[in-house]
Amino acid sequence: MKYIQRPTRYNYFLFIFIFIFCNQLFGQDKHKNDLPNFIILFCDDLGYGDIGSYGHPTIKTPNIDKMAGEGMKFTSFYTGSPACTASRYSLLTGRFPVMSGFGWVLYPKSEKGIHPKEFTMAEALKEKGYTTGMFGKWHLGSTKKEYLPLQNGFDEYIGFPYSNDMIPPKWPSIPLLSGNDTLELDPDQRKLTGLYTQKAIEFIQQNKKKPFFVYMPYAMPHVPLHPGEQFAGKSQRGKYGDVVEEIDWSVGEIIKAVKKAGVAENTLIWFTSDNGPWLIKNDEGGSAGLLRDGKGSTWEGGMRVPSVAFWPGKIQPNSVNSQLTSTLDLYVTFLGLAGINMPTDRIIDGKDISGYLFPNKKMVVAPKSFFYYGFNQEIFAVRKGSWKLHIKTYSQLKIDYFNGEIPLLFNVDTDPSEKYNVAAKHPEIVKELLEEIEKQNNRVAAKPDYFTEMK
Amino acid sequence: MKYIQRPTRYNYFLFIFIFIFCNQLFGQDKHKNDLPNFIILFCDDLGYGDIGSYGHPTIKTPNIDKMAGEGMKFTSFYTGSPACTASRYSLLTGRFPVMSGFGWVLYPKSEKGIHPKEFTMAEALKEKGYTTGMFGKWHLGSTKKEYLPLQNGFDEYIGFPYSNDMIPPKWPSIPLLSGNDTLELDPDQRKLTGLYTQKAIEFIQQNKKKPFFVYMPYAMPHVPLHPGEQFAGKSQRGKYGDVVEEIDWSVGEIIKAVKKAGVAENTLIWFTSDNGPWLIKNDEGGSAGLLRDGKGSTWEGGMRVPSVAFWPGKIQPNSVNSQLTSTLDLYVTFLGLAGINMPTDRIIDGKDISGYLFPNKKMVVAPKSFFYYGFNQEIFAVRKGSWKLHIKTYSQLKIDYFNGEIPLLFNVDTDPSEKYNVAAKHPEIVKELLEEIEKQNNRVAAKPDYFTEMK
Repeated sequence: MKYIQRPTRYNYFLFIFIFIFCNQLFGQDKHKNDLPNFIILFCDDLGYGDIGSYGHPTIKTPNIDKMAGEGMKFTSFYTGSPACTASRYSLLTGRFPVMSGFGWVLYPKSEKGIHPKEFTMAEALKEKGYTTGMFGKWHLGSTKKEYLPLQNGFDEYIGFPYSNDMIPPKWPSIPLLSGNDTLELDPDQRKLTGLYTQKAIEFIQQNKKKPFFVYMPYAMPHVPLHPGEQFAGKSQRGKYGDVVEEIDWSVGEIIKAVKKAGVAENTLIWFTSDNGPWLIKNDEGGSAGLLRDGKGSTWEGGMRVPSVAFWPGKIQPNSVNSQLTSTLDLYVTFLGLAGINMPTDRIIDGKDISGYLFPNKKMVVAPKSFFYYGFNQEIFAVRKGSWKLHIKTYSQLKIDYFNGEIPLLFNVDTDPSEKYNVAAKHPEIVKELLEEIEKQNNRVAAKPDYFTEMK
Repeated sequence: MKYIQRPTRYNYFLFIFIFIFCNQLFGQDKHKNDLPNFIILFCDDLGYGDIGSYGHPTIKTPNIDKMAGEGMKFTSFYTGSPACTASRYSLLTGRFPVMSGFGWVLYPKSEKGIHPKEFTMAEALKEKGYTTGMFGKWHLGSTKKEYLPLQNGFDEYIGFPYSNDMIPPKWPSIPLLSGNDTLELDPDQRKLTGLYTQKAIEFIQQNKKKPFFVYMPYAMPHVPLHPGEQFAGKSQRGKYGDVVEEIDWSVGEIIKAVKKAGVAENTLIWFTSDNGPWLIKNDEGGSAGLLRDGKGSTWEGGMRVPSVAFWPGKIQPNSVNSQLTSTLDLYVTFLGLAGINMPTDRIIDGKDISGYLFPNKKMVVAPKSFFYYGFNQEIFAVRKGSWKLHIKTYSQLKIDYFNGEIPLLFNVDTDPSEKYNVAAKHPEIVKELLEEIEKQNNRVAAKPDYFTEMK
């Protein structure tokens, strides 16, 4: 009987000490290794129709297609904005671009930038213990150090602070930054995709034992198109195809690096684009496939983009998801998967879509309305379920597709090309969607979580 | 030493006799079993953009996508005509529709039909010893028995002799034929896809030991859209999506049947469509994706269609072919694979594309110009390599996309949407293509192989 006794005070403390010690020694690392890695491969101006598995006849993208074949292809996935800066803001914060306090696109001398109170995906993951690296285009402010990636959650950074067409003679020399410092002015853009790829691969290799986050916003296929030497003149689709095929190569290299590092089964890789194709650039711009219009517009072609999620062993191979999703959802989903609580001092507009990624876990995705913010950060359209209501339209092509008729209602599931306006047939849906817009505008007007004026 | 001797005359004849006998007994069957089976799955009015792997966001086609993933996807594959009858003529004869002597579309009372001197793919294969079955829409003549499938190479036939919209009250009752006889008048169209699928599966099972040819021209997604009960209201794309998803189911069942029969590795299955989407039917018509216009027009959307070839163990999985190919090429390619000599008394317009299917065998595909025949069997456009020249355009939508400008030259590899007319930039290519058209017109005018007038 003497062996069954209450622990002495000494034994008790010893037990606690050993527990804490072991926890420190193995537990935390163990815990960290359980956290999934995240990689976002983010194209610039790649249209819905510019990938083989999204229907392009002559652009060959075997690596992205294979990623879709072994992962999940999203067919109704939106960017936060039809333009660059606002879209990147939404991706990194999970919030509609209207909350940023700055406009659509920032220029080299723009005085604004991402507010210090924004809590980017990189900051959230870094706080949790992730090592975070960014290789590519920033475009969330460049005139103050506080706007740059290192001050917004990234441990490492190589890239352009804004678009690759903001260059001399119209603009000042563009810096290739390494951290906060200029590595080179006006570098040879043909080397960019290769450089970013190499840096990302090195980062993955160096950080494979810790949880990591890689944000890889490619400079291309934004104009000017500069394919690397190995890709120039190789595609059947001209220069635009060349740069997309180089990105496809890069995607393949990144996946190889993740496999080589032995972390493929613990890494969620997401491929997508910042907005639709820049149609006014003619054959140097891409294609939105069957969708109407492109970059700059809140027609589907401006904001619906290719989107592929890859996580071997976790995401069902060859799956297709056609539900309403967006880049804003990545914020909520990634933080959720990393066990990070959502910030409570602001509204996050994204939703957790892990229920789509892992349907066997029976997690339900709560639907949310999606707002299409046009220029001047006004709501141009809203989508709820299958229904999309336009209250204002704009096209850089200067085409007025419906002769000024407003509002326009489309069922974008049965009519993804937005050809058949059914507003007159469904006045009750028009009313419901107008109310959604009003609620959202009231929320923004109240500004409880709008940081611009606090600056 | 006595065992090594010249054969006696008796031995010699015995040897030859045994050789011939064995050859008769095993050789021919063996030879027949070596011949590949062919299955053509042929949709009606399915557009380039209406399949998941060709970019449709809400039509789910997992079986066709899997077929592409395990086979070859063609992205620059044309039908012989932007309309039904002429397209089917070209598929079955390997000849441009102008040679048929009848127009674009035949109606229930049309007096014309396929000429007895035409040598259809089915006739060629039957002569070689194939068992041939057809399940679906014929549309090559119905007012005389000689026009029907059984008199044109098919051992078995179930189906409509013309389109599923040629029905009362505008037209007489449509017969569902079994062979040359009417099985039923005005049958419930919701059962058609299921019926054709079941008949094809039975045929495959019954003929698995012989070489066989199955031609399966679905009634849908031609209007009126009649999905089977299990598919009605199930797709996210409305009724049009329902019928395409039912066809996708059928494709899956056919592939299963071939596997179950144990002949998958000896069967080439080809999925495609007869022409582009019937856009004037609004949301009951399909989508040409990024291609311009649809059915009836010689713009790319009218004649470029999805096309997938599947032959496990023979065709490289996950391969994409973006070279100029067409339904006319199937005639030449299938006959070649079956060891049948081409007819020598007429010009066959298709080309052998087995070099694309089996690139490791180093067979070279000889390029040929492709002619886009519009209504009245006139050449509207020609394609040679990447270049397409229009000399006449037409659109059922009544859109004149280039304000009457003619000729129009497009590089359909870099500009598949035919947006940028470069005729002024490349007068030498315009000249070359005009000469191609002239040569073809002269050939047809000479009519050495044009049977209509012989009737």
